[in-house]
Amino acid sequence: MDTSKLAERLVEAGQSHLLQFWSQLSPEEQAEMIVDLESMNFMEINNFYKNAMKTSGQTSQEKMDTRMEPVPRDVLGSITRDHECLKGWEEEGLRCISENKVAVLLLAGGQGTRLGVSFPKGMYDVGLPSHKTLFQIQAERIRRLEQLAEKQYSRKCCIPWYIMTSGRTMDMTKKFFTDHKYFGLKEENVSFFQQGMLPALDFNGKIILEGKGKLSMAPDGNGGLYRALGTQNVVKDMETRGISYIHVYCVDNILVKVADPAFIGFCTLKGADCGAKVVEKTNPTEAVGVVCKVNGRYQVVEYSEITLATAEKRSTDGRLMFSSANIANHFFTLTFLKEIVRTHEPQLQHHVAQKKIPFVNTQGQLIKPDKPNGIKMEKFVFDIFQFAKTFVVYEVLREDEFSPLKNADSQDGKDNPTTARQALMSLHHRWILNAGGHFVDENGTPIPAIPRVGPAGTVAPELSQNLKDGTDLPIKCEISPLVSYGGEGLEHLVNGKAFQPTLVIDENGVHELVKNGL
Amino acid sequence: MDTSKLAERLVEAGQSHLLQFWSQLSPEEQAEMIVDLESMNFMEINNFYKNAMKTSGQTSQEKMDTRMEPVPRDVLGSITRDHECLKGWEEEGLRCISENKVAVLLLAGGQGTRLGVSFPKGMYDVGLPSHKTLFQIQAERIRRLEQLAEKQYSRKCCIPWYIMTSGRTMDMTKKFFTDHKYFGLKEENVSFFQQGMLPALDFNGKIILEGKGKLSMAPDGNGGLYRALGTQNVVKDMETRGISYIHVYCVDNILVKVADPAFIGFCTLKGADCGAKVVEKTNPTEAVGVVCKVNGRYQVVEYSEITLATAEKRSTDGRLMFSSANIANHFFTLTFLKEIVRTHEPQLQHHVAQKKIPFVNTQGQLIKPDKPNGIKMEKFVFDIFQFAKTFVVYEVLREDEFSPLKNADSQDGKDNPTTARQALMSLHHRWILNAGGHFVDENGTPIPAIPRVGPAGTVAPELSQNLKDGTDLPIKCEISPLVSYGGEGLEHLVNGKAFQPTLVIDENGVHELVKNGL
Repeated sequence: MDTSKLAERLVEAGQSHLLQFWSQLSPEEQAEMIVDLESMNFMEINNFYKNAMKTSGQTSQEKMDTRMEPVPRDVLGSITRDHECLKGWEEEGLRCISENKVAVLLLAGGQGTRLGVSFPKGMYDVGLPSHKTLFQIQAERIRRLEQLAEKQYSRKCCIPWYIMTSGRTMDMTKKFFTDHKYFGLKEENVSFFQQGMLPALDFNGKIILEGKGKLSMAPDGNGGLYRALGTQNVVKDMETRGISYIHVYCVDNILVKVADPAFIGFCTLKGADCGAKVVEKTNPTEAVGVVCKVNGRYQVVEYSEITLATAEKRSTDGRLMFSSANIANHFFTLTFLKEIVRTHEPQLQHHVAQKKIPFVNTQGQLIKPDKPNGIKMEKFVFDIFQFAKTFVVYEVLREDEFSPLKNADSQDGKDNPTTARQALMSLHHRWILNAGGHFVDENGTPIPAIPRVGPAGTVAPELSQNLKDGTDLPIKCEISPLVSYGGEGLEHLVNGKAFQPTLVIDENGVHELVKNGL
Repeated sequence: MDTSKLAERLVEAGQSHLLQFWSQLSPEEQAEMIVDLESMNFMEINNFYKNAMKTSGQTSQEKMDTRMEPVPRDVLGSITRDHECLKGWEEEGLRCISENKVAVLLLAGGQGTRLGVSFPKGMYDVGLPSHKTLFQIQAERIRRLEQLAEKQYSRKCCIPWYIMTSGRTMDMTKKFFTDHKYFGLKEENVSFFQQGMLPALDFNGKIILEGKGKLSMAPDGNGGLYRALGTQNVVKDMETRGISYIHVYCVDNILVKVADPAFIGFCTLKGADCGAKVVEKTNPTEAVGVVCKVNGRYQVVEYSEITLATAEKRSTDGRLMFSSANIANHFFTLTFLKEIVRTHEPQLQHHVAQKKIPFVNTQGQLIKPDKPNGIKMEKFVFDIFQFAKTFVVYEVLREDEFSPLKNADSQDGKDNPTTARQALMSLHHRWILNAGGHFVDENGTPIPAIPRVGPAGTVAPELSQNLKDGTDLPIKCEISPLVSYGGEGLEHLVNGKAFQPTLVIDENGVHELVKNGL
């Protein structure tokens, strides 16, 4: 095998250490490594590194502080503060959907490392009564929403679904959809595309080897979306279909309102080209990024970037001044995305994250460092807010719309399968109550609307002990997205009725799965 | 032993089943049982039962809904919304303290069952660097506050401390204080008194036996305070000392601002006879009781008493309408307490809590039921709000002032030693930052103000990964109450300085306890 040309390229790029174990590799390993290396643009990677390092750590917290401004009220739509507008926004969103103008775009390139699984997160079953996966729940929400729009505006419509995977998750994701017949969606309306990968670098910009013939690679961040939109012809496909508005969201949020018509309607009525759905940050030290204005342009400021003094700032109404917590849930017009792909994406710097990256040392042994030894370079999906001409923010309730799946259950009880499952069941419990139904225990005694241990990990003071034992757990209750997208259409099924958990409502009817009480 | 008179009393009261195992008891057991039974007023207990059952479950959720009104704004003082008043309230409170008019009263009758210990909760060490117990932390806050008041108003003063224990915790509590020399307080300024005990009853009002010769007894609720205030001459002692204002709080809150001068100043300036410190309830399904008006009088409505529709109601500003979450932290004038003891306490009904109560069956075997089989009768400390002439509510920040210790660490990660410890260290971390200090890791790199995992169990979105590894844990940092009561007096120690955790600041100075990094 002639590697001289490749070796030359590597020398030129200062990455010739990648071949240090070449002679020890089997022919198969050599062949694989060549494929990896041939496809790589080392000069580009070196430039990414140079540019990323130039801007990284440049802005001190104090500097950011003086430049941050909160989201002005006229740019903000709020579920709690603009309640009277909600119906109008929703109708407008449904209208856009009914005109086939809305697509959804799913960020599903992550690998569930923290969750402790080797398959894509969307394939995870959090243990609902139905054992539906995140992908299935989202697919069914799309189907239901299409029906709602069709019914309201009396025309057939579809919401195309674009799913961004990474090199590592593409095959499994596609197979999962094929195996499950696209969960009832039409195959031609579900497209997969792939975000890029970038190598991990040491602090000197040298690509890290995680095996003698294997580079340490990772997806290029959820902002890799914009490059992929161009290279994979996604934008072109959207144009062909006549799409105007795109809802972008992250796979791990079990409560996500896919193509949320109220959000879309709010954004279009405001004439926005870019919008961010947020939840209210109520606690200064909450580890969330906040949407705000910096030098007159919108961006997400990470919690690690601001001082406590700024995090604690309050408006005259007592609320936190910087309270728009980013949840990776966005609206874009296609016009805006095209502009991004064409003009702005190439200019965006990567963010640098210092990481502990397993590597092979010069003896060829795999080392797992206990301190950061290198960097990963990523772009973020919110990096493009700065280019918006009309940017809006839409604030929703966390307990209704945001419960991400990040960690395994063995970890600290936060953002894991249990919290995700309970968040969904608590929401569906509330839907039942608001539709006039209620729950009883095995003795027929009504169960209070608020169970003792809230799904959000809330506090029950010592005083509050005049509750019957046995209601300490959230009510087990699941409503298929095929029956209700956002709580609608349940009255005729539950009004005035008492149910004993576990309650399941799906397209086949209302079922009480009683297994010896709780 | 002549038990005929006792037996007669029992027959008369319908409780003669208590002697069913009499002949099987040893003489010692018989003697003990006689002591227990002799001291008991069965007629009174039967009356408590009758009256409690009469009112229990009387008010349906729907009825409560129509009667509930939120706390009016003019009755509410808020740390976030009335920031400009804070200094004035605090000065007024310190003045009252300096005039020896303020006492604190600690509710410490609970037994830490859920925490899994056999000693009083106040003796618990949550694992701070100093290993101080809750009692010590509270004692030192009192000492520091006395100093602050003395300094501000140039006169010696003291804050007497009244500690309510139960029959089961009195001896251990007293011994603990003696062994620790009252944590530097004067012995004569710390008084212990004992709340009453009541037997558990089955659903027919029969006292439950938990052993052949042993009644199932429990403290009579934190509202047992008011009866004990009279029977144990506490009110009289307060009068003798010239006390006007009493701050009542619960032992399990590690963040409690004992005799909080701002709270006391707010209440006295408002001319209140009764006040409740609350935190904002931000989530409709949070399992907390809320302070509100019912039929024109103030009370705490438990989360189990309201419908979801009411819990979800919002004011025009988007906040929950019923948002004043009760945290068992109250202000009373002595005049008001005297009135309560004399007139109102005897008329207060007990609350009924259905419980799973271990009992001996007719064969003398101990049974642990898996369904509720009886009731405990309790009064609550907030039962007397309704008698206030001028009632006020004072809203503070949860992360600054409320982190109760309820569960063992093995449980679901909520309100346990870990969350308590982290809440205190997070608060002290914020004090350091606000006094101009900051933290660095073992490489001297500054640690962000907001660590990745917030102490309140908050969310860190997937995007937020440009943090260095190793800062996932809250900063370890503890400041002795003898140095700072509420963050004051730290500038000269920390301003402009960088510290490596673990940081401890106590009366001996500033210490960095470095143990191989984190």
